[in-house]
Amino acid sequence: MAKIRSRKNTSKKEVIIEKASKLFREKGFGAASMRDLAEHVGVEAASLYNHIQSKSEILQAICFKIANEFIAHLDAVEASGQPTLKKMEKIIRFHIRMMIEQNEFVYISDHEWRHLPEPYLSNFLNQRRNYRKSLGDILERGIANGEIKVIDSYVAVLTILSAISGIESWQRSRKQISADTLEANMVRYLIDGLKK
Amino acid sequence: MAKIRSRKNTSKKEVIIEKASKLFREKGFGAASMRDLAEHVGVEAASLYNHIQSKSEILQAICFKIANEFIAHLDAVEASGQPTLKKMEKIIRFHIRMMIEQNEFVYISDHEWRHLPEPYLSNFLNQRRNYRKSLGDILERGIANGEIKVIDSYVAVLTILSAISGIESWQRSRKQISADTLEANMVRYLIDGLKK
Repeated sequence: MAKIRSRKNTSKKEVIIEKASKLFREKGFGAASMRDLAEHVGVEAASLYNHIQSKSEILQAICFKIANEFIAHLDAVEASGQPTLKKMEKIIRFHIRMMIEQNEFVYISDHEWRHLPEPYLSNFLNQRRNYRKSLGDILERGIANGEIKVIDSYVAVLTILSAISGIESWQRSRKQISADTLEANMVRYLIDGLKK
Repeated sequence: MAKIRSRKNTSKKEVIIEKASKLFREKGFGAASMRDLAEHVGVEAASLYNHIQSKSEILQAICFKIANEFIAHLDAVEASGQPTLKKMEKIIRFHIRMMIEQNEFVYISDHEWRHLPEPYLSNFLNQRRNYRKSLGDILERGIANGEIKVIDSYVAVLTILSAISGIESWQRSRKQISADTLEANMVRYLIDGLKK
């Protein structure tokens, strides 16, 4: 029977989650079965169950991994004491890099969280709401300090996050420009739009 | 048997398409059946078939209605001879208003076009590609004329269209701000980001 191969420093569970993210992305979480996943990993279903109990466990792992990375980055930026535009640039750049480098994970966490079981679902949605609120707070402090233009912070956060999630379409469209060109130009557009 | 009620100047087919757009939006095009639609319209399925032959016919009507409105608007803007920033503002504003006022139609045309049968699918994708290319051309002429900043036009178009499609999330989130606030702030953000 085939074994689940893992690279050094990577647990078998991580390998499964990695493969699952590609499968969920292709088929959608709802349509993908544990049997599909076993096939994708190249092992028997029974062997898979030694490492992971359910699809839902994998979805939780992916959603909270991504949420935690975004929150940890935001916390570090907030603690940095830098000017608002510098903070926003760091955050925007981090979101863009996550979309580019961890595309499957971010896609699943953005599109498939509805399938999380409670209490994970509420927890996840709470974290999302708080995250967006923190972004809005950074902007509002920047407006109050006169560092950036007066703009509705809800609309600014919506504009930034939606623009970045459009990188999806760059991923699908055979990447006609390089990731670096994409990052540099989108950061500039979104930062310049906040300047006074 | 219940009759399909239509307002003055609205054909029965238009009423059906209107109702279908809400149904497709809720259930997804794939999951919605002609039987569901008949129920939604409040008539027997047989009566529905007097006006419309298939789900696909409705999807075509919606996708090409929206595509034609965007193209007609773009043609008018291109012919206006206005400065680049004014043209872009008109286009961005039109997209935002379409997202707000024709939300179901735009949603279906954006998310369900994959279900179009050939040759409609290729035609639709062609129109979409040409539309994005025309937007990019407006920006590139503006860059060449020194009217706007030097920016990769593909990234700028992606940023603009993705940001606007994020209005979806405003629709879902109980519209915490007014449509006018949303429009004014998003237009300003996306236009200011293009200024030199």
